Order: sequence, then structure tokens, then C-alpha cells
Amino acid sequence: MVDMTIGQFNLIYNAFSFAFAALAAATLFFWLGRSQVAPQYRTALTITGLVTFIAAYHYLRIFESWTAAYDVADGVMVATGATFNQAYRYVDWLLTVPLLLIELILVMGLSRQETLSRGLRLGLLAALMIALGYPGEIADSASARWFWGIASMIPFLWIVYELFVGLSKSIDNQPEDARGLVNLARWVVVLSWSFYPLVYFAGAIGLDGATATTIVEVGYTVSDIVAKAVFGVLIYMIAVRKSQDYFDKQGGKDAVPAE
Amino acid sequence: MVDMTIGQFNLIYNAFSFAFAALAAATLFFWLGRSQVAPQYRTALTITGLVTFIAAYHYLRIFESWTAAYDVADGVMVATGATFNQAYRYVDWLLTVPLLLIELILVMGLSRQETLSRGLRLGLLAALMIALGYPGEIADSASARWFWGIASMIPFLWIVYELFVGLSKSIDNQPEDARGLVNLARWVVVLSWSFYPLVYFAGAIGLDGATATTIVEVGYTVSDIVAKAVFGVLIYMIAVRKSQDYFDKQGGKDAVPAE
Repeated sequence: MVDMTIGQFNLIYNAFSFAFAALAAATLFFWLGRSQVAPQYRTALTITGLVTFIAAYHYLRIFESWTAAYDVADGVMVATGATFNQAYRYVDWLLTVPLLLIELILVMGLSRQETLSRGLRLGLLAALMIALGYPGEIADSASARWFWGIASMIPFLWIVYELFVGLSKSIDNQPEDARGLVNLARWVVVLSWSFYPLVYFAGAIGLDGATATTIVEVGYTVSDIVAKAVFGVLIYMIAVRKSQDYFDKQGGKDAVPAE
Repeated sequence: MVDMTIGQFNLIYNAFSFAFAALAAATLFFWLGRSQVAPQYRTALTITGLVTFIAAYHYLRIFESWTAAYDVADGVMVATGATFNQAYRYVDWLLTVPLLLIELILVMGLSRQETLSRGLRLGLLAALMIALGYPGEIADSASARWFWGIASMIPFLWIVYELFVGLSKSIDNQPEDARGLVNLARWVVVLSWSFYPLVYFAGAIGLDGATATTIVEVGYTVSDIVAKAVFGVLIYMIAVRKSQDYFDKQGGKDAVPAE
């Protein structure tokens, strides 16, 4: 761990606390929101909340690990010797990234056969992507980082292909009201994920020191909030729009708000 | 951190603990109250509870940070060197202030289009207001505090304009029963928020020392409780009144009390 200024330390510290609060709040929002959507979309919201729940737990651990890794000495933050545990992020992603893709598939309301096959394929590709990245993250040499990073890009590009080519026909079949949001959701996945390899390869080209640490930690945190909580709000909005018919048919008995 | 008397320290300590208890209790009240309102107002109550949930979390952290910042020595409270983390407040406001405005828009039951556009505009203005205030809060010079404080007043005044001019037609369209409460709610927003710039500029005119710290911390705490919990009770009362028709139509099957 490199020494850093109090300002840099605090920025990261506050970013972690912010992420916990945002993800925990998002979890409760998704779970309480289950009653606002038709029964066939409730599993999608359950999983959306699971993703933010798992991430909130990890940010609590990351926050504690960060606090333990530094002490103030003479006005700068000095490493205590306790290592900041980067593995929390990978453990988190191994669980949440496959679930993220599955929540998108579930809210699309495809046939049971298509839901299973696409969910399984995307989930496995996502787990493979994370598992291949980790050896490079903890490797000492830049060449190992390049090797595993590029290996991890293969399932990543396959996922992008699945989202933009494999799913395009299913997206055209979405109700007109929800189509734009589903399209936006897959863009949020791809764009928020693009930040991760950028940070990863910054390590491979030797970017180092306190400023690099600050960019990496704050950047990962913002990406996690976008990819999980903001993405989840889109899933919620898609589910609400697609549920309108269901509630209308119930004669307005349980009519839900427009949004 | 300035040294302070045990009485001053304890007043702030107890104010923080009070705020946690009040906000946590309010959260449970709003979420349990979801079943007492018509389905179209439940999202408003979900978000009302999220605001107090996020604030309760931050008051727990603020309380811990305050306890760590001081030690008793010779009958006065002496700074330990651990900084009291003011950033918790800004992180909290960045999340809760946009949500506060969104809960008001949601309980008004506007069209989907109007809900989205007004909610988005008010939410972004609120986030901008908080983000512009923070650099001044942590600045060393009074001139920087003035600069950022005044910059932050621009989105604040825009929000006031939106609430009192932009929303006036929609408020006239509220059921007669609820109109007075909606009007009161926007006044609570503006009046409780007015305390924040007062405290903020007290720093810019050089008000300092233990008494100033006590006024600032207790003042922010009271304002947070009014702007989040008391405001939330108004949102709840509006939702209950507007739900009367819904429960009447259900043949009194699930009839709720008038309040």
C-alpha cells in the first residue's frame, strides 16, 4: 500500500461509505417495489435487490478493510501493514455480475426455454470473465496482467455480442413502451463495464502511486453504483411499464402509479 | 477540532443519538404505512422511508465519528486528532435531497411524463446544489466559502422557483382535501432548507469556536429531522387523504382511518 494524503484517503473512505448507503437503499427500494409490478416480474426485482444487497455487504467489508489499512502519521496517511483486501471486489463480481445479466433476461419476459438458455449462457460467461481476470489482478508481473486481462476480454466480448446481436430480435418484440428502456439497459451494462478493463490495464502499463489508487478505487465504486443500482432502477422501470396491462385488467383494483 | 466543554460535547452527542432514533423510527413508520395507502402512492412512501433510512445510517456514522474525535482531559473535551468527518453530511444530502423532492412529486400523482421530467429536473438541481456546496465547506479561505456558497444558491433558488411557480398549477389540481398539505409540504422544504445556508455562511463570516460548532451541529441535526422525518409525515398524510376514494370504492373492505 502506498502512502497518501489525508484528502485522498478521505475521498476513498467517503466513496466507500456512499456506495454502502446507496446500495443498501437501492436493495430496499427493489424489494419493496415487488408489490408494484405484475407477479411475473417479481423474480427479476428479487434478483435486482440481491445484486445490490451482495454489493452493499462487500462495500461494508471494503470500508472496514480500507480503514484498517491506514493510520495518520505526521499529517499523511501511512500504511499500517494490514493489506487492503482487493479480493472482496472479485468475490462480489463473481456473484453479482452473472445475476445482473440474469435480471435483464428475466425482465424481458422471454419463453421459459429462452430464459433458461440465455440466462445460463450469459451467467457462465460472466463468471468466466471475472475468474479469468483475478489471477492478473494479483500477479506481480505486467505480462501476467496482460495475459489474464486479454483472456478475460474474450468472454466479455462474447457477452457484448450476445446482448447486441443475440438479444436484438427479442428486444424488437418488447412492448413499444418498454423497448427504449431495455435498449438503454444493455447500453448501461456495456458502458459501465468498460471502465473495469480501463482500470485493469492501467495497472498493466505501470500506472501506480497514490493518485492511481484514488482513481482506481473511486472509479470502481462509481462503476459499481451505476452497473448495479442505476441499472436496477432501469429494470424496475421496465417491469413497472410492462405490468400496466396486468393492473389494468385487474380493473384498477391494484392500479399502480405511472412510474 | 476545537476543545469544548463536557456540556457542549454531550449536547451534540445526544442530538446525534436522538436523530438516529427519530430517523430509524420514521423509516419503519413509512414502510409499515405502505399498506394504509392506495397502491399508486406506495412508491412515494417507499422513497420517503429510503430518505430517512439513508439519513439514519449516516447519523450512526456521524455519532461514531464524533465519539472518536474527542477525549476527556482535565474536565474538558480535547480533540483526539481523529477528524470528525463532515463529509458524511454531504454524502447523505447528495442521496437524500434529490429523493426528498422526488417523493413530493410522486405523492402529487401527476402524469407519467410530468413525473419523469419534473422529478429528473428537481433531482439533478438538488444534486448540483449539494455538489457545489462541498468545495466551500472544506475550503480553508472565507472567499472560497463565499464563492461556492453563492454558486450553490443558484440551483437552490431554481428549485424554489420550480416548487412555487412550476408546480403551482399542479397543486391547484390536487383534491381539495390534500391541497393545503401539499402547499405546507413545499413550505417545509424551503423553510427547513433555509437553515443550511445560514449555518454555511456563518463559517464564511468567521464565526468559529466551540459555541459555533455546537450551533452548527445541533442546527444541522434539527433541520435534517424536520426536512426528512417531519416532511415525510406530511407526505404520508397527503397519501392517506388521497387514498380515501380508493378504499371507499373497495366497499370499505380495507378501509383505513382518516389519518
